[in-house]
Amino acid sequence: MQFELTKEYLEQLNIAVESKIEAKILELIDGLHAVDIAEILDEQSTKEAKAFYALLPEELVADALVELDEDTREKFLEEISSEEIAEKIIDNLDSDDAADVIGELSEEKQDEVISHIEDIEQAGDIIDLLNYDEDTAGGLMAKELVKVNIDWDVATCIKEIREQAEEVEKLYTVYVVDENDILQGRISLKKLLLAPENKKVKDVYNDELILVQVDIESEEVAQIMDKYDLVVIPVIDEIGRLLGRITIDDVVDVIREEAEKDYQMASGISENVESSDSTWSHTRARLPWLLIGLFGGILGAQVIEAYEDQIRIHAGMALFIPLIAAMAGNVGVQSSAIVVQGLANNSLGLDGLGKRLFKELLVGLINGAVLGSLIFGYNFFFSDDLTLSFIVSISLVSVIVFAAIFGTLVPLMLDKYKIDPALATGPFITTANDIFGLFLYFYIFYLMYN
Amino acid sequence: MQFELTKEYLEQLNIAVESKIEAKILELIDGLHAVDIAEILDEQSTKEAKAFYALLPEELVADALVELDEDTREKFLEEISSEEIAEKIIDNLDSDDAADVIGELSEEKQDEVISHIEDIEQAGDIIDLLNYDEDTAGGLMAKELVKVNIDWDVATCIKEIREQAEEVEKLYTVYVVDENDILQGRISLKKLLLAPENKKVKDVYNDELILVQVDIESEEVAQIMDKYDLVVIPVIDEIGRLLGRITIDDVVDVIREEAEKDYQMASGISENVESSDSTWSHTRARLPWLLIGLFGGILGAQVIEAYEDQIRIHAGMALFIPLIAAMAGNVGVQSSAIVVQGLANNSLGLDGLGKRLFKELLVGLINGAVLGSLIFGYNFFFSDDLTLSFIVSISLVSVIVFAAIFGTLVPLMLDKYKIDPALATGPFITTANDIFGLFLYFYIFYLMYN
Repeated sequence: MQFELTKEYLEQLNIAVESKIEAKILELIDGLHAVDIAEILDEQSTKEAKAFYALLPEELVADALVELDEDTREKFLEEISSEEIAEKIIDNLDSDDAADVIGELSEEKQDEVISHIEDIEQAGDIIDLLNYDEDTAGGLMAKELVKVNIDWDVATCIKEIREQAEEVEKLYTVYVVDENDILQGRISLKKLLLAPENKKVKDVYNDELILVQVDIESEEVAQIMDKYDLVVIPVIDEIGRLLGRITIDDVVDVIREEAEKDYQMASGISENVESSDSTWSHTRARLPWLLIGLFGGILGAQVIEAYEDQIRIHAGMALFIPLIAAMAGNVGVQSSAIVVQGLANNSLGLDGLGKRLFKELLVGLINGAVLGSLIFGYNFFFSDDLTLSFIVSISLVSVIVFAAIFGTLVPLMLDKYKIDPALATGPFITTANDIFGLFLYFYIFYLMYN
Repeated sequence: MQFELTKEYLEQLNIAVESKIEAKILELIDGLHAVDIAEILDEQSTKEAKAFYALLPEELVADALVELDEDTREKFLEEISSEEIAEKIIDNLDSDDAADVIGELSEEKQDEVISHIEDIEQAGDIIDLLNYDEDTAGGLMAKELVKVNIDWDVATCIKEIREQAEEVEKLYTVYVVDENDILQGRISLKKLLLAPENKKVKDVYNDELILVQVDIESEEVAQIMDKYDLVVIPVIDEIGRLLGRITIDDVVDVIREEAEKDYQMASGISENVESSDSTWSHTRARLPWLLIGLFGGILGAQVIEAYEDQIRIHAGMALFIPLIAAMAGNVGVQSSAIVVQGLANNSLGLDGLGKRLFKELLVGLINGAVLGSLIFGYNFFFSDDLTLSFIVSISLVSVIVFAAIFGTLVPLMLDKYKIDPALATGPFITTANDIFGLFLYFYIFYLMYN
């Protein structure tokens, strides 16, 4: 049932496109959705993609363009005249997608395209939407919605909804507003279908409504829709007027991107990079963390260098350098990750900082005791240097406790100063923990042997 | 507008609950949603929560229970009689939530509760749903839906929809089936409202429909709904009969949990643990990775031990142990993370293994060249051992290239054998890379000095 793009399919299609056998192309894309078409376009060479795009049935052109990778879309839009963008693409899109597409153009081209939009109302909607920051409720919302007046009766409502619905692709909820367009509540189609025709809206509508203001961040919109299991949420301005609505499909993208960003941060990738991107994009996304790692490694080398003469005497000390450094980093990342997820899900609960740190101390001590005893046991049986065994175990416990507390504090502090707390699971903190772990190890070593 | 739980609010509420001042409680929870109530219950002590729950208005009882943390819910259900569960809770839930709640009970209690459900149809739906694996489309779907026969006219349809809609809380799509209940397509309410009453369904319905079979995995359902921006998707059996529907809110949970699982894996947390969970849960979630880390550290120590005598002579070698080990781990995680995300998003594209590995080789060589030169420069200026400088740089480049290729191969292989590829960004591979990095470093050291 679902389309799966294969190499063979792509080859067949490209041959048909090259030879312009339209019948074959139509047969190949029969039943495909705009998303599938976009997937094909993303895999084709620029030349192939342009030839294919030119032969697409008109109803797929606009939607496929919206679904494209941003880079690929940019390349396409550069080739198309402003008039064609307005007529073939913008005219077939909802206001939110239309604004997104136009927002990617140069200022000059934006004005040109807008001047070519025939439907004045749509042009106005797009201009309104372009004013909102991409990462706010305003940037996510569409203007298309169905609303009824609170003073109407059910029969008028149904008549009005019929008319309004022609403009709206998917009808989710009917909003109820007063004469000043102030949002009052909602009424479900089901209720309208079931209610007697002469009832007034004000007697059957639902005045409990979760809504968002136009200027809140898109992440917060996602959190609210996720928490309350909403499919659509209305957006209001400062005085409560209904401006638009955000649907869950746009918010799913926000949720996924947010989670991906955290995962990338924890994996040391600094840009959103896909497997199929260029070697250069990959290098650019990965090198920054590795440079921090290199810098950390050099600092670590300097810590060790200070004890170089002692290592000559107690060469056994060198054995546990990787263990101590790795453990410091690991424990820190674990502690930070739990805080980061708690902040992302709003599930940190009501515990104060003191209680939180005390729990980390406890967890650190338990984990430290287990791991410290194990490594002591190992050293006791396999090494004849009892002092070294003590040093390693004591260092390990100290490092684990310290890293657990540090790892909890850092994301909380970052969040307080409005910095993305997921940074804490990334390179800086891991590297800092590594170095501090080494420092502690050698300092304890120095204390015990002097 | 949205409820935010504070310490002060909780204290006020707990006082009111303790003194059973019902008016005060109702005032405090006025306008709250079931999710908010669940949030409160999760923060209360078991005793407080039970007292509060007993005083809740009936319409909130069932929904709040569904929204609770699984642990908390289990505690509640243990205290409630089977009859009360059936009447107060199950009766007020959609079939999917009802099946989820019943599925958490003991086998014996399941039978008791089901025997107390009065609505035979609902009991049947729940029994059907309990048969499906939690992690499949069947485990996500609800049986409540609105369907019409393809041979009816629009007037009959609207009449039927009115009747069926009374059972269905939210009406998303009207499905069209034939006389054998085989799914044929869908018809939008909008279209029904706009069509003349005497038209036949078969003349106005839409036969293009994305659907899933009941036995596919929930992750695949999530991928399809996300890809095609669907709010609801129908579920069919092997011969195409309409069984139920899955709504986006349940799928958002799957998407979020999946992303969280990957993040936790990359951060070395082996169980889903929240900040507010007990010290014991935290220890249990974090110790496994640390044990693997400890084991890896011991293996690393053994690699170094083999060269202990040489370290006495060339103590400078010890300096770069943390750098080499950390870099091997970092590069491996980066490469794996990109593959893991590509697999999760279905965005790996059509490149074959050879092309993919060649790109990794290239990225590894570029990154290695940059980092190797930098560390060579550092050593050239700050160390007088030129051989050591060469060893460190050559090792670094080799380790980076090796880890990049290894990090790409492992998740692809895991995926091929149906193991979660995100494991590759977790402890095993990082530790393996660390150790292999050390091994390579000391082996090159051995070759250069002998």
